[in-house]
Amino acid sequence: MPADLIDLLRATVGTDHVLTGKVAAPHFTDWRGRYSGNALAVVLPGNTQQVSAVVKLCVENKISIVPQGGNTSLCGASVPLAGDMPQLVVNLSRSNRIRAVDATNYTMTVEAGCKLDSVYKAAEQANRLFPLGLTAIAPHCEIGGNLSTNAGGIGVLRYGNARDLVLGLEVVLPDGRIWNGLRSLRKDNTGYDLKHLFIGAEGTLGIITAAVLKLFPRPQSVATACVAVRDPVAAVALLSHLRATCGDAISAFEIISRSCLDLVLKHIPDSQEPFAHTTVRGEVSNHERAYLSIPQGEPMVKHEWIIITQLSDVLPAALDTALTDALQAFDEGVLEYTVTLDKDLAETWWNLRKNISDAQKIEGISIKHDVAVPVSRVAEFIAQASAALRAAFPGIRIVAFGHMGDGNIHYNISRPDAVQNKTFIEQHEHDVNRIVYEVVAKLEGSISAEHGLGQLKREEITHYKSVLELELMSSIKRALDPQGLMNPGKVV
Amino acid sequence: MPADLIDLLRATVGTDHVLTGKVAAPHFTDWRGRYSGNALAVVLPGNTQQVSAVVKLCVENKISIVPQGGNTSLCGASVPLAGDMPQLVVNLSRSNRIRAVDATNYTMTVEAGCKLDSVYKAAEQANRLFPLGLTAIAPHCEIGGNLSTNAGGIGVLRYGNARDLVLGLEVVLPDGRIWNGLRSLRKDNTGYDLKHLFIGAEGTLGIITAAVLKLFPRPQSVATACVAVRDPVAAVALLSHLRATCGDAISAFEIISRSCLDLVLKHIPDSQEPFAHTTVRGEVSNHERAYLSIPQGEPMVKHEWIIITQLSDVLPAALDTALTDALQAFDEGVLEYTVTLDKDLAETWWNLRKNISDAQKIEGISIKHDVAVPVSRVAEFIAQASAALRAAFPGIRIVAFGHMGDGNIHYNISRPDAVQNKTFIEQHEHDVNRIVYEVVAKLEGSISAEHGLGQLKREEITHYKSVLELELMSSIKRALDPQGLMNPGKVV
Repeated sequence: MPADLIDLLRATVGTDHVLTGKVAAPHFTDWRGRYSGNALAVVLPGNTQQVSAVVKLCVENKISIVPQGGNTSLCGASVPLAGDMPQLVVNLSRSNRIRAVDATNYTMTVEAGCKLDSVYKAAEQANRLFPLGLTAIAPHCEIGGNLSTNAGGIGVLRYGNARDLVLGLEVVLPDGRIWNGLRSLRKDNTGYDLKHLFIGAEGTLGIITAAVLKLFPRPQSVATACVAVRDPVAAVALLSHLRATCGDAISAFEIISRSCLDLVLKHIPDSQEPFAHTTVRGEVSNHERAYLSIPQGEPMVKHEWIIITQLSDVLPAALDTALTDALQAFDEGVLEYTVTLDKDLAETWWNLRKNISDAQKIEGISIKHDVAVPVSRVAEFIAQASAALRAAFPGIRIVAFGHMGDGNIHYNISRPDAVQNKTFIEQHEHDVNRIVYEVVAKLEGSISAEHGLGQLKREEITHYKSVLELELMSSIKRALDPQGLMNPGKVV
Repeated sequence: MPADLIDLLRATVGTDHVLTGKVAAPHFTDWRGRYSGNALAVVLPGNTQQVSAVVKLCVENKISIVPQGGNTSLCGASVPLAGDMPQLVVNLSRSNRIRAVDATNYTMTVEAGCKLDSVYKAAEQANRLFPLGLTAIAPHCEIGGNLSTNAGGIGVLRYGNARDLVLGLEVVLPDGRIWNGLRSLRKDNTGYDLKHLFIGAEGTLGIITAAVLKLFPRPQSVATACVAVRDPVAAVALLSHLRATCGDAISAFEIISRSCLDLVLKHIPDSQEPFAHTTVRGEVSNHERAYLSIPQGEPMVKHEWIIITQLSDVLPAALDTALTDALQAFDEGVLEYTVTLDKDLAETWWNLRKNISDAQKIEGISIKHDVAVPVSRVAEFIAQASAALRAAFPGIRIVAFGHMGDGNIHYNISRPDAVQNKTFIEQHEHDVNRIVYEVVAKLEGSISAEHGLGQLKREEITHYKSVLELELMSSIKRALDPQGLMNPGKVV
């Protein structure tokens, strides 16, 4: 290890902002604790010029650079690789100024190290909305990481992914030069759109240091519905119907399977079934009874699939009426629903959704998937993957939930018994992945909808992308980072 | 010229689909008649495999490729260069199938040669909307060209640019291989987002042969307002106010200067002033009188700046009330307004806007600009550019209009007298451009908002982009098209 490099880094960013030894260690392990690596140090530059200087030092010394924000990657994208390759973690958390808010232009300019929460707040202070819907992780993740992974979340069906919320970028390139692409224009056709290369590249093409973000007007009216549907087929049709009747007002459409609900009810205090068990809407058809195994004559209990959907609008609108009308006009498998303007009631439903991951964690480990298919094929995905998995592994528990509004399903597999589960995962993770991803591939889906590739799926993706596409990605990587120093071992 | 190449091309696409001589000539001159070049032939492949085969023949014979759609580029992007370089025009007009419409997924898959009009119609037949708002040119332009130039238009403030309306692409690369990126996913984070490289690249990185487009629900309610505003400062504030109060419902916000109106009223039959001249809203302040040169005591006539704005919604909503309320609540320079639900009345206003280009053409030539600045700085742009130009060239006519909702102003300069005008343009086009573009640069704007660079601004842009950004663009070009055969002399 070049000892004087540490001195040079200290001289560049300040002694306190170069971490080594024990204080550096937490930066070398990822959020889930799956990936650990080693680096010479963690450097925390306070501004873009310092990032540039640090990268130039790395280039001179042929040291790889691992860009890091809140270190909340679920794919090991933001930690150094294991092994002996000399690496430096460049953590952006100190570069965290809100540089400007232009309420009239509906934009703000922020530095990479801003927590997502602080971006929300700065927008709110200007009576604007920044709509990237990752509320659970927002106190921890940083906007630079959100952009580098093209983060998704709940609001994508209305506002798009992180990439759709960006007008301009500032990037420190792999050679240390600063590209100032901080434009705040809604239209600009003067050559290749470079910002889209860096967004979602997980730090492999450069370090995003600042961005111009789009802001939106703040909705004034919100209505929420909790809807029990017969099955995912009905959910797909309902979503299409709601879009056609309520349009852009739909700002969330989340699906929750019974297995998710049961875990939340078991592990999360104060959670409760969203519907009184004995209420059903209209007659229960024989088909529905057979599907849910309800004997003739008995009231329906425990809905298998729940949808939480939300309408919001800037215009003052009777969204509860609109949502009720739309649900009433739809009769293909809606079993029961409640529509509310009451924030507290809506919050109890949202808590069911938001607590799924925590409840799962308490229950034990599982084989997780973050997949996307065309919205119209979500039901096919769930049916085909579940059938194939149940055939291969009888007795497994399938926890399926997520952003149905954009086709993104979180689909996690485990065995209910803890001891059996451990063995199952050790022995069959690869087989389970193969079964799930083959269904995804058949339905022309994605094996990583919103979490990225990182280290976790870097090899896996080579089975599902064409050789030509992988080659194009590599040629872009070589063109921008010929020395391969920028976040090696991730993505490409 | 390799004679057997023509035979090989005929064998590839069919004898009738290789044009030479007189029938080829119209394809060598651009829409405005500014650029003419020469090519060995025009080839019209009927499908993607044929495009691939044609490109491979060109590569083998070191012949440059000029991709062409409806040939409506306003920057000479879709015609061969003048000079002796061997070039082949590859026209996509015959590859024009609608491959699929998935109404439930709100997507459609179309080939490059589909006229924009036919894309609108196919969406409409599925009760969906394709919102790229280029209505005047829609019968002529093709979707491949719209995507290659990242077309804009009237609806960008609500629906985004062409690039925002694409989920997947199929591209024939510069070596003739076909990249199948025809995904119809709302979320996909599995590596670099290649589609954004080809969109807006004006055919310099490959030939877009098909795309998966996003569709939207069809609005059911529409209200339109014609608003006379004191000046562009008031227009900027009004737009911000309308977004904050009406939100996503705003689907158009166009500005028209008096000079535009006068030209339309002079040259387009049946056009008329949008407001009765003697009606004013409230008192006319001395500031307004001074600004518009209206003597004390006289009624206000001939508003200098007109806004046409539109609200639309899928939900049944009283948008006329919403628009009226929003306008009434705004008091900073709205002189007069009319709000209507009546389509015919709205159409008379829209015709004023749509006929500006035709009226200008009848009046004579002008020095045209297609610029963008941050929406919040549109008024500054108009004020500063107009002041600088009037100082340099007293007596000029400034025709300013366009998509204020996204900061894109069409800003055209001429002299009212035809003879003087000819001399003026011959002598001063360069100086006028320099004055306009310097103001654009100062306001961190773009010298080409929606028309692209093509041949027209390829050299110009080098004065306004950083050396680093130009270098990045060149390195992308080299990585994807190392032989430089794809649409040479355009963009980079």
